Order: sequence, then C-alpha cells, then structure tokens
Amino acid sequence: MENKVIRQRIDVLRTWMKENGLSAFIFPSTDPHSGEYVPDYWMARQWISGFNGSAGTAVVTLTDAALWTDSRYFLAATEQLEGTGFQLMKQGLSETPSIAEWLGSTLDEGETVGMDGWVNTITSVMDMEAELEEYGLELNTELDPTESLWEGRPELPDSPIEIHPIELAGESAQSKIKRVREKLEENGCEALMVSQLDEIAWLLNLRGKDVHCNPVFVSYVIVKQDECTLYINPKKVTASVAEYLKKEGVSIKNYDSIADDLENYEGENIMMDYNTSNNQLWALLPSVVILNEKSPIAPMKAVKNEAEIRGYRSAMLKDGIAMVKFLHWLKPAVEAGGQTEMSIDQKLTSLRAEQPLYRDISFDTIAGYGPHGAIVHYEATPETDIPLEPHGLLLLDSGAQYQDGTTDITRTIALGPLTEEERHDYTLVLRGHIRLAMVKFPAGSSGTQMDICARYAMWQEGINYLHGTGHGVGSFLNVHEGPHQFRMNYMPAPFVANMTVTNEPGIYKTGKHGCRTENTMLVTHYMDGEFGEFLQLEPLTLCPIDTTPINLNEMQQDEIDYLNWYHGWVRETLLPHLDDEADKEWLIEATEEVKK
Amino acid sequence: MENKVIRQRIDVLRTWMKENGLSAFIFPSTDPHSGEYVPDYWMARQWISGFNGSAGTAVVTLTDAALWTDSRYFLAATEQLEGTGFQLMKQGLSETPSIAEWLGSTLDEGETVGMDGWVNTITSVMDMEAELEEYGLELNTELDPTESLWEGRPELPDSPIEIHPIELAGESAQSKIKRVREKLEENGCEALMVSQLDEIAWLLNLRGKDVHCNPVFVSYVIVKQDECTLYINPKKVTASVAEYLKKEGVSIKNYDSIADDLENYEGENIMMDYNTSNNQLWALLPSVVILNEKSPIAPMKAVKNEAEIRGYRSAMLKDGIAMVKFLHWLKPAVEAGGQTEMSIDQKLTSLRAEQPLYRDISFDTIAGYGPHGAIVHYEATPETDIPLEPHGLLLLDSGAQYQDGTTDITRTIALGPLTEEERHDYTLVLRGHIRLAMVKFPAGSSGTQMDICARYAMWQEGINYLHGTGHGVGSFLNVHEGPHQFRMNYMPAPFVANMTVTNEPGIYKTGKHGCRTENTMLVTHYMDGEFGEFLQLEPLTLCPIDTTPINLNEMQQDEIDYLNWYHGWVRETLLPHLDDEADKEWLIEATEEVKK
Repeated sequence: MENKVIRQRIDVLRTWMKENGLSAFIFPSTDPHSGEYVPDYWMARQWISGFNGSAGTAVVTLTDAALWTDSRYFLAATEQLEGTGFQLMKQGLSETPSIAEWLGSTLDEGETVGMDGWVNTITSVMDMEAELEEYGLELNTELDPTESLWEGRPELPDSPIEIHPIELAGESAQSKIKRVREKLEENGCEALMVSQLDEIAWLLNLRGKDVHCNPVFVSYVIVKQDECTLYINPKKVTASVAEYLKKEGVSIKNYDSIADDLENYEGENIMMDYNTSNNQLWALLPSVVILNEKSPIAPMKAVKNEAEIRGYRSAMLKDGIAMVKFLHWLKPAVEAGGQTEMSIDQKLTSLRAEQPLYRDISFDTIAGYGPHGAIVHYEATPETDIPLEPHGLLLLDSGAQYQDGTTDITRTIALGPLTEEERHDYTLVLRGHIRLAMVKFPAGSSGTQMDICARYAMWQEGINYLHGTGHGVGSFLNVHEGPHQFRMNYMPAPFVANMTVTNEPGIYKTGKHGCRTENTMLVTHYMDGEFGEFLQLEPLTLCPIDTTPINLNEMQQDEIDYLNWYHGWVRETLLPHLDDEADKEWLIEATEEVKK
Repeated sequence: MENKVIRQRIDVLRTWMKENGLSAFIFPSTDPHSGEYVPDYWMARQWISGFNGSAGTAVVTLTDAALWTDSRYFLAATEQLEGTGFQLMKQGLSETPSIAEWLGSTLDEGETVGMDGWVNTITSVMDMEAELEEYGLELNTELDPTESLWEGRPELPDSPIEIHPIELAGESAQSKIKRVREKLEENGCEALMVSQLDEIAWLLNLRGKDVHCNPVFVSYVIVKQDECTLYINPKKVTASVAEYLKKEGVSIKNYDSIADDLENYEGENIMMDYNTSNNQLWALLPSVVILNEKSPIAPMKAVKNEAEIRGYRSAMLKDGIAMVKFLHWLKPAVEAGGQTEMSIDQKLTSLRAEQPLYRDISFDTIAGYGPHGAIVHYEATPETDIPLEPHGLLLLDSGAQYQDGTTDITRTIALGPLTEEERHDYTLVLRGHIRLAMVKFPAGSSGTQMDICARYAMWQEGINYLHGTGHGVGSFLNVHEGPHQFRMNYMPAPFVANMTVTNEPGIYKTGKHGCRTENTMLVTHYMDGEFGEFLQLEPLTLCPIDTTPINLNEMQQDEIDYLNWYHGWVRETLLPHLDDEADKEWLIEATEEVKK
C-alpha cells in the first residue's frame, strides 16, 4: 500500500532541501513554547509523516526517511507509517541508532542538516549540534520548510483571551510582575524572557483557549525593570483586555515582533532557561550575557494564595459532586450493558459540564478497562475501545478545568468480581497512597525524600511503577506543573506550604490489569517546634475510594483509620450539596466505615 | 591570665610572616590526606592556638589572631583560647564574619595571605582565593612556617606496615590495581593520584598504625597503566612487605619524592579529586589536563567480597560476645556505684581486647549519660565525666577494629526507671531503625530515597535529628566510608549488593536525654522479578536491643515481629559462643519475645 499524500509531501520537501543546500531535515514533536500539548499549527512532524503520537521525531534525507518514537507508540506508528516511506526507529532498544548516529551513517562529512530553531529548545539544538559534529555534519537552524510547503496548514487560533478575575487570581498582575523584577534584581539581571504559556497566563492573570486542555494563549513576554511587554496576535486582545493590560503596566506588541525586539535588544544581559526556551530566541540576540536559569516564575506559581486555595476547594466540591453522580451511575450502567471506555468518559464529562464555571477537561481521560489499565498512558480510541463487563478493574484518571480551579483524580473501580491478584495489588496501591498522604515533614524537604512512602509496601514484594508519584497542579492552568514533584530520581525543588501536589501510586501488570489511586493534595502547615517547622499533606479531592476491592487484613490499622477519616470528611462535605436522594444514599454507603 | 607559650609562638610566627611578605597566615584542621583523624605531626592549628578540637581554623595577622570553630566547641574553645590573644569566631552565627570577610576588614588591599598548600584541598584553596580576591587580597600557598618554627614537633610515625592477608582481603592488590587501570582507560586517563589513606590501604592490601582508630599509613600512590608507585617512608617497609609489593608490581619511593615526580610528570593528563587532594599536588604538576573526578576506588572499596563478608561475620560475633558480657555486667555495676561514662568505656574496651584479632577501637567511644546523650558528638573527658546512676538512659556508640572486620554499634540502655518522654522517644527511634531495616528497594536506589524510613514515625510528631542515618563501614579500615549514605540531603551514590551501611536514627533532647539505636547492615539480593532486581538490608550486628524502655502499644505489629525475629537470630547465633552460664541466661532473657 502506498500513502501518496505523505510521499508527495516528502518529494516536495526534498526539492526544497536541495534548493536550500540541506541534506536532511529534522521535525520534532515540540513547538516554540515547550508545552505538553502542541497547537495544530505546529504539528509539522504529523504533517510530514502522518504519525499522530504525542512524542516522536521525523527525519527526512534526500534518499531516506525515519521516525523515532517510544514503546507507547510502536504499534500505532507501525500502522500509521505504512506506505509512507518512513521507517520506524524504536527508541529504547539497544540496536536503535540515535538520530545523529543514523545521519552520520547516511550522510557524507561536510553535509548540512536542517532543524527549525523556533520549535526546538536551546538545549536540544546544542546537543544535536555537538552530536552531529562528531560525524562532521553541520546544523542549520534558520530554515523552516513548513512556511512555504505546508498547504492547508491550520491557522494559529485567534480566539479572544479573557481576564482571570482578581477574586480568583488573588494577586494582581502588577504585584506578580513586581515580584519577578525583585528576583531579577537579586540575580543582577536586566530582563526575563518568558516563553512558557502557563507562566505568561499566571503572570498576567489572563487565560485563553489556544491549547488542548490548557487554558493558555500563544504569546511571549519580556519583563524588564521598567517595562513588561506581551507579544501576541492583536486580534486576540479585546478592548477591555487592552485597557486592563494598560492599567497593569503591560504593553502589547505583535507576536512576530519578538524577533525584531530580540535582534535589537540593548541590555547587557537577559535570563532564559535553555531547557524550555526555543533556540531562535537565543540566536536572534546580539552579543549579550545570557543567564541560563530556571524561570523564577515556576516556584512563585507553585505556591497558591488564599483566593486560589478557596477556588480549589470550590472546584473540588463540584468535581466531587460530578464524580459521585458518575460512580453511582456506573455499576448499574455496566451491568445493563452497552457501555465502553469511551462512552463512560463522555458520561463523566457531561456530568462535569453541568457544574458552574466548567470550562474543559484538564487532560485526555485515561479510562482503561482490564488489561488496558496496565497501559500507563492509555487513551481509548474508536479502534481500541472495548465494552465494560461486570467484573475486573476499571482505571479512570480524569480531571477538569473550572474557572476557579483545576482537578486531577484517579479512581480504580471494581466493576464486579475480582481476582485475588487484583484485590492484593489494589490494596498495595491504596496503602502507598495513604502512607504518603499521612506523611509529615520538615519544611523544605524534597519530593525525592518522600516518594518512597508510596512505594514501601509494594517494594516489600518486588513490585514498582516507573512513573512519578506526584506533580503540582495549576490554578485554572496546566494540570502538570513544577517545580516540585514526588519522584524516585532527584528533584531538588523544596516543598513549601500552599503548594498543590498529586499523590498517585499505581501497579501495572501487563496483559492483566492496572490500578492507581490519586488525590490532589495541598501542602499545609503542621506544627512548629524544637525541630523547626513541619508540613503535612491535606487532601483537596472529594470522592469516595472504592472499598470493595480492599483486603482489609493486609492493611495497617493507621491506614484503615486514615481511610475512614477521609471518607467521613468526604461524606460530610459532599452530602449537603447533593440534591438527589439516591445519590446521597450511594455516598453514605460508599463512605461507610471499614474494619478489619 | 596570659598563655605565654602560645603568645611566644605567635610572635615568632609574625617575625617569619614579615620576613616572607605575608600579612596573615591560615592554619586549617586538615592534613595532606583529608582524613577524619589527623596525625600529631600535622596538628599545626593546635600548636599555634592551643585549641585541641577536631574542627577549627586559626588565622594570625600581624596584629590580630582569631579562631573559627562550630557550636560543639564553643565552650572548650573559650577556655582553651583564654590568654592566647586569639579571639573566638563562632561559626554558624549570623553575626560571625567568614575568614575572608574578616581578613578583608583587617588587611589592606594588595596584601598577601599565606596558607600551606600541602594541608589544604584544591577546592578549599580555590574557594579561599576567590573570596580573598573580592577584597583585593592575594593568596600564597607555597610557604609552611611549621617547618622552621615548630620546636619539638612530633615526628611522623615510622611504625612498620603489615600485609592484610589475602584470606581476609579476598582480592589481590594486583587484581585491584588492574580494575583501577580499567577504570582509567574507560575515562581516557593516564594516571590516578591517590592520596586518601584508606584508599591506599585497600588498594595495596596493607595496613598501618599511623592514624588514631584508622589502620592506615601515611603515603601516596600513583597508578599508571604500566606502573604503580607507593610513596612512603622506607623505614616503614619491612623486607617481607618490600618483597610482597614487588610481587604485586608496586614500586616504592620515598614519601617526599611525590613532589619531584609530580613536577616532572610526563603524561598528558591525570585524575585527582579536588575535594580530597591537597593543593600542592595540583600546583606541582606541569601543564597537563587534570581530570577532577571522584576516585574510582571508593565505589570499588564499598562493595565487599565474600572473604570480607566472612570477616565481618566473624568480627561481629566477637563484638557481640564482648557486648553481651558488657551489658550483663553493666546494670549491677551501676547499681553497686562508682561507675562513670569513662570507666564503663574502659570496661567495654577491655572486653573487646580479649577477643582474637582485636587491634583497636574504631572511633572514640560516645558514652553519654542523661543530658550528655543529647550531645551528638560527645566524648567524655576527665572534666565532663559523670557518675552513672540507676535511672535514665545511657547512649553508648562504640566499635572496634579486628583484623577481620570493623564494627560500629549504638545501644541506648535504661539504667533504671525512665520518664514517659524517654520511653516514648526510645520507642520512636526503635521504630525508625526497624522500618529502615525492613526496607526492600530496586537495585541502584539512593540513600536519599530511603532515609525517610528511619524518620517517618518521629516526623509524625515534629521530631527530627540532624545527622545522617547511615554510612558505609570499612573492612578493617575506616569506620566511616562512602560513597553511599542514608541522608536527608542528596547522595546520588547508588546502593548495590554487598555494601555495608549503618542504620542509626536518634532523638536528642537538649538538657534531657539522647537515644540512638544502630546496627551495621549488609546490602543483599532480595529478589528478581517483573520489576527488576530488588535489594534488602540484613543485620550484621549481633547484640540485644534493650526492650525494657519500649512502649509496645506504640509499635506496629510488623515492627514487633521484626524485633522478635532479630532477637531470635542474635540468641541462636551468640549462645553457642558464650562460655559463662550467667552470660547465657542474661542473653536468653534479653532476647525474650515481646508482645503487645
């Protein structure tokens, strides 16, 4: 089978490459703003290869074409690349060459490889340049074939941005900009280049609709001591937003003017993070000192103020109501038949959408039934969707964007009888979740120190999971944010009061089942004493945890006590907000005290 | 009161400083080999200031003199510096200037400060140089006043070194040198400069008596691909050792020839660790590439071979017998009266000295009764020694050097009735010790990940201890060795099978009491499975843990089960090796099963 559309695009690209003296071109899966989700406008890798996975790099030479992706996408990529002329390069296998190795073996010394500096970070360009140099190859980052070749390219969205009200933001843009300026002064730095979209949205108290699941808008910001400039498509700025920005001391320029302004930059230095800033921002600058530092905005954004915490509590209440309605509905619906992974996701989303201030989901729902639960990043598609039956485990990881807060919750639900292994794994995961939920720790501890709490019980049996245990959650912003995390590898960012963090251990048995239990938590003050300040984790998520799969005799008494305490709190908090008597009854039953 | 001796030394030093164009001289507490204990020969800081603490830096200018030390020594230093002309600089207090700040405020721009490059590491010289530069001061590291001024300076010991038998070492020097050469080749490096004495002793399977508690000898080694040279005072090398070294392919040169050989070094590069190598080694080298890397020997030395593990088991058995005899003796002796912290230390040491292959203690015993137990680095002296009474807690941290292994054990013993706070703290510490002792973990995990296991229970109550939870233990070598540790701060060194590590949580209540419970553990294989290799900790230390202070109702059942398992193993292992019926009876009673 031939994939004519893709083959034609490759041909057109090769002609352009020859005209521009390039022997290869590299298409990454990233965009100028290093976000988790990429707007269609920048999906050039999918355009040239046809492969639609979230991670993957396409490389085209004058004679060959290859696409690198990881094990999550081996199956999908094999199918999607058929007949395109692209060969699949399976990342993570020892026999798979790196991109530079492959180019080194394909091209001749002295030839030039292209890679668009706008959609690759400074670090990734530096690394590629150094690797290619080993094979005597040059790197050109100034050319972008999509500009002239991509027919029918999607537009960048021009939907208007909105003001995030001060009652929800809790701090004015002016005040946030002032704090950034103080940080710059501490570092002897004249300007901060901000290119991460959630940082811009947080800093200016603005929200947009440009990116899937993330309420952000395509833009750049440069903060200097005496000015703060937002680079954005002016169509997106309504009169009231323009007025608001003026009042906050922010000037507006066209999105594309960032190039001119950097080329003509007159300061002596500027701060940008090489790991998240695109290479063109760096390349355009005249000879100035560039301070390669992590953005000072991330740690500010991670610590929530009172208004934001109030917003989380409101959002969690609404999300809890939707979840209770959903869980109450679920088991009978499965028993009645006709439900699938995708259909229950639609049901849950529709229940969330009924809630006030609902805006969107906060990430693509993971609804994995049976063996699908063991695929960590599973997203049901019409091709993979399967019917739910009244037995086994359903792993359901979902969340919503409400204007007052972002939610992220995982529940694993017994749809009927379980195997002993399913019950045991479910209990181990719950024990890990609770052991971490109960931890108290000196202010400033790192997530690396605490991560083991969630793994201790399963490690006793040689079981582990290879993802992190928790991440920060934005305030009507990205569901994944840093800088703190619970992780096995080293994450130096200290935990301080008023950070949000998820607590989501899991167990995944390939071909069998997956379980994960996740609450979003708030870091709060625990006590001051002889040994300094201690912090604790308080749950924000309001939703029963299925008690039917638990092997109670495998749990420690303090773990059972915590579960009963949590369920008591969920019941008391949610009950007054439920209208339906049957929902109330279900909640009371679902949160009933358990005993050994 | 005037301290004439010290004042005269300062005068002589100032005359020498003027002759040599120096405006100040800095005396550190370190020696050329960066060891924990410093031979008398290098105690120049004590010679010039009279202060005998293990940590402290003396600085003399033409008009002033000051000594920096930490809070452990504020009292002792105040007394010892009286009448010397030295003022005390209390490290850790915000009002205390750094050495460079103080010199900056005392000296004029352009003046020169002296600091002997032989007894300061490369890193410390670089840091000092950079700090002094901020005040326009120069640093000279080429001059050593002690050579000409120190009258009656102690000699470097010339006691003979001995061969560590292959039956105990388990691997020949030749084989170890071969492994080092392989590491050098991997790093594209021609030579390794070894200056840490325990690394030299391990590498060459030699032991000495030059340093307090550490069975090492003053020397350097340079390993190249085609030669390995030991720089040592030839008086220390007996004919049989000389023959042995020749057979192992090691040539011998005089200790002082290291200077000439570095000055005339003909290679293109050499590896040395800036944090442990003295500055003169670096300064003497002609223009070659210096690879500042951690020594490859530390991770090799940390992983014990079968013979070494056999040796540990033998040493622990002997140490356990001595401890049982001691503990059996202790309480009646205290009740009879007349015992002090120092007297019981002598008793314990004499019991250890009766054991075969006993050589020395492995560190200065910490025997802290009552409030003294709360002083983490307490060492009883005739001035501080107090009588033991039949109530309260005695913290006893001690260890021995046997030719077949090094031991390190802490027991906290109830000498009679306790307060409720003492019982509670004792129980929290024991729970931490056991929770860590039971941990299973993926091979390659770091001590930073596991440290919290020992702290979790006490953190629930806002209690913490500020030392590490565990360190490696040498094989008839230094009781403290790396590179792995259990610590709150980041220690990247991965745990692998056959490492030794201590497990020693504690609680210290100033003015009240201290408790610590410590076993030395061996990292062993636990299981292989779907999620890779898992490791565990097995106790090596054989000695009952006092059960009388435990609040059993505060412990989890699995913690009690572990304690009973440990005591069963101690009883079964030690009992056949005890001669005395009364000792046997005591052991049986001390290891009796406990129940809630």
